[in-house]
Formats: sequence, C-alpha cells, structure tokens
Amino acid sequence: MIDSITLLGLVGGTLTTVSFVPQVVKTWRSRSAKDVSLWMFLILSLGIVIWIIYGFLIDSFPVIAANIVSFILVFAILMLKIVFR
Amino acid sequence: MIDSITLLGLVGGTLTTVSFVPQVVKTWRSRSAKDVSLWMFLILSLGIVIWIIYGFLIDSFPVIAANIVSFILVFAILMLKIVFR
Repeated sequence: MIDSITLLGLVGGTLTTVSFVPQVVKTWRSRSAKDVSLWMFLILSLGIVIWIIYGFLIDSFPVIAANIVSFILVFAILMLKIVFR
Repeated sequence: MIDSITLLGLVGGTLTTVSFVPQVVKTWRSRSAKDVSLWMFLILSLGIVIWIIYGFLIDSFPVIAANIVSFILVFAILMLKIVFR
C-alpha cells in the first residue's frame, strides 16, 4: 500500500507536471511563443534533469516520476518556443 | 556539513527556481503575456503549495526551500499574466 505522504507528493507532482500541458496546447494552437521566455524553459529543463537524479538518490518516487513527465512536457515547450519564436 | 545528495538537490532546486526569473523579467518589460498560459501558472501555483507541504513531511530541505522561492516567482508571473493578459 502507498502511504499518505507519498500520495500527497504524487498529488503535488501530478499538478506541477500537468500544469505544463495547457502551455503546450496553447503554443501548439496559437503557433506563437513570443511572450514565452526561452531562458525559463532552458534553465527549467536542466534543473528538472538534476531533480530526477536527486529523486533517485533520496529514493522518492514522486520526485522521480513527476520530474520525468515534466521534463518531456517542458522540453516540448522549449522546442515549440524555438520553432515558433 | 551538508551532504552531497542534499547539495545536488539544492542545485536542481536553484535551477528550477531561478528559471522563473527570466519569465518575470520578460513579462514585466514587454507588458505582454498573451502567449503565456494562465492555466499553466494557476495549476503550477497550486502544485507548488502541495510540494512545500510534502517537503516538510519527508524532511527534505531542498524540496521545501526551492518550492517556497518558486511559489513567489510563479505567483508573480500569474499576477503579471492577469494584469497584462
């Protein structure tokens, strides 16, 4: 059974991860990313990679899982930013 | 002394936190947030609050510290998005 602390971590992780979906959808639809900061998503991608490693080291499943999915979405926004400017 | 795992967590936390600064600066300067997703920053704010609580429960200083500073910056972007549209 999953304990309640891990469950809370998974809720937090799900929210912060899911939050990137509306930005992916918005940028994909509008074909415009002028107001989106390139540096934000560059630095965020790098930071998330380090969080994944940290998650493995402290053995926190919520930290690992949330950051792997977040990385995919943040990297998608970064690519859309580079393509659409 | 701080251990190397905590140090790595702090590096990850510093990067993901600092990443929001360029978006704050960009939106403040351009007075435009058209391409920034309101839903992204709304959901992200809520998720970060839950991460802060989770950080206290697993006693992870990097999770607590990074998310408190991130919340301030993400909330600032949210306010700028609401003001400048």
